[in-house]
Amino acid sequence: MIWPFVRGLLSFYVTMSCASNRRVTSWYDSCSDIQGVLLDISGVLYDSGAGGGVAIPGSVEAVKKLKQSGLSVRFCTNETQCTRDHLVTKLSGLGFQVKRDEVFAPAPAACIVLKDRNLRPHLLIHPGCRPEFEGVDCTNPNCVLIGDATDEFSYKNLNEAFRVLVGLQDPILISMGKGRYYKETDGLTLDVGVFMKALEYACDVEAEVVGKPAKAFFLAALQDMGVQPQHALMVGDDVVNDIGGAQSVGMRGLQVRTGKYRLEDEHHPTVHPDGFVDNLKQAVDLLLQHRGQ
Amino acid sequence: MIWPFVRGLLSFYVTMSCASNRRVTSWYDSCSDIQGVLLDISGVLYDSGAGGGVAIPGSVEAVKKLKQSGLSVRFCTNETQCTRDHLVTKLSGLGFQVKRDEVFAPAPAACIVLKDRNLRPHLLIHPGCRPEFEGVDCTNPNCVLIGDATDEFSYKNLNEAFRVLVGLQDPILISMGKGRYYKETDGLTLDVGVFMKALEYACDVEAEVVGKPAKAFFLAALQDMGVQPQHALMVGDDVVNDIGGAQSVGMRGLQVRTGKYRLEDEHHPTVHPDGFVDNLKQAVDLLLQHRGQ
Repeated sequence: MIWPFVRGLLSFYVTMSCASNRRVTSWYDSCSDIQGVLLDISGVLYDSGAGGGVAIPGSVEAVKKLKQSGLSVRFCTNETQCTRDHLVTKLSGLGFQVKRDEVFAPAPAACIVLKDRNLRPHLLIHPGCRPEFEGVDCTNPNCVLIGDATDEFSYKNLNEAFRVLVGLQDPILISMGKGRYYKETDGLTLDVGVFMKALEYACDVEAEVVGKPAKAFFLAALQDMGVQPQHALMVGDDVVNDIGGAQSVGMRGLQVRTGKYRLEDEHHPTVHPDGFVDNLKQAVDLLLQHRGQ
Repeated sequence: MIWPFVRGLLSFYVTMSCASNRRVTSWYDSCSDIQGVLLDISGVLYDSGAGGGVAIPGSVEAVKKLKQSGLSVRFCTNETQCTRDHLVTKLSGLGFQVKRDEVFAPAPAACIVLKDRNLRPHLLIHPGCRPEFEGVDCTNPNCVLIGDATDEFSYKNLNEAFRVLVGLQDPILISMGKGRYYKETDGLTLDVGVFMKALEYACDVEAEVVGKPAKAFFLAALQDMGVQPQHALMVGDDVVNDIGGAQSVGMRGLQVRTGKYRLEDEHHPTVHPDGFVDNLKQAVDLLLQHRGQ
């Protein structure tokens, strides 16, 4: 059979031409056993920003092809500026085929933690995310829960959260993610992890992270797909939270050179992605080619 | 001579009655060689807050007695919400005898650092502190300098500072202090160190601290008094920045139980004050009694 050989050669040249002067990736040589794929959303599918953001070129088609391939697909996001419903509506508006139940986000995961442990949170979150916490008892708070609150991260609101924490015998700080920054259409933007660190320092506590890179978060998505970690691939733009998190449960992690990607990520001191691709389109093309699809 | 013995006995009972159920301090037994005293301002002289704050009972008289005693006295503050002139005016209004040249504050120290190293700062500081930076070139910034900016620590302003830092080849972050919180009249309030940690995490840099607990800051005040560290005493309410900082240059450090003091400070994992006193008044009374004044 000459065809697989030609196809392999072709994808090699595609990678070389797209990634000129970068190291040649070979993650796809061993991807034939992949059964499920987790996709980060912001920075992989689209860049968020004013007016709803913009799709990253090729991503709409890539998601479509991936779903048609028969592989299991879930979307694993640390998005906490809005509800999953809102996110799905926004993505649909950009042309993506994404269903609510395919999206794993920190707010629903946080609600389970709060209920399990009888916690009443002081919420420092984005107004768009509040509906996810409807029905949660927030009276007489015994913990602080923060998300990507953006403009709500005012000095006044941070002080309020601080005073709740410092007044507790055993302060509990729960953070929906620990990212440093993400890419908006107008540039890099501070993420929730920065304010988590601020409150950690203020109160001398260590936050509990719900969302990526927490192992439980990846495992819940894998369980939903019915796929073992060693047969699953995470595609993300965050070297620590997407790639490092996925690898910590035994998945493979592929970093895209879109979104918040920076050249330094390719020489990260602790996290070594299984591969780099220029964008989601290239990831899906190579994955499907090497699976013979 | 029976009198020194009686006086010693008296001060022992004063301490015991003031510090009932707390461990007995004995720092004053070896204070006869003290030649100079550094006083923190906020939390020791007064509690800041709306309307200019309030003097801590006994502190006005204590400063007066200390200055009359012939000991060298300087005020070592991390105050960066206003200029030294403004601070001195405010303290005078509360009855304190403090001269501008006796006050060591981070902003003038930062100006020297900026000049020495040809740095053009992006300033994230309190509007009241801006006059201290008049004449400093802030065009095309090659570093970020932060102070206790309070309400200026908005998400927008933190993002601006972050984008300057993340755009620099070698990001330099200078922080005027690294305190966690201080006491305002209406409660504990976040200090500059919290936002320093936030930006450190966002950009993966380590800030350079100007002000307490930097050694250079204490040494400058000691040099101005002409007193060797082993003959100097720091009185402060911040166990890490006042006491730890002073001890790191060889001074003794006395913590007051006013201002931001919390019971946990008496069992701090790394800093062990040479003594605790209920307030500045008690510190000065014991010091002068044991020096035979």
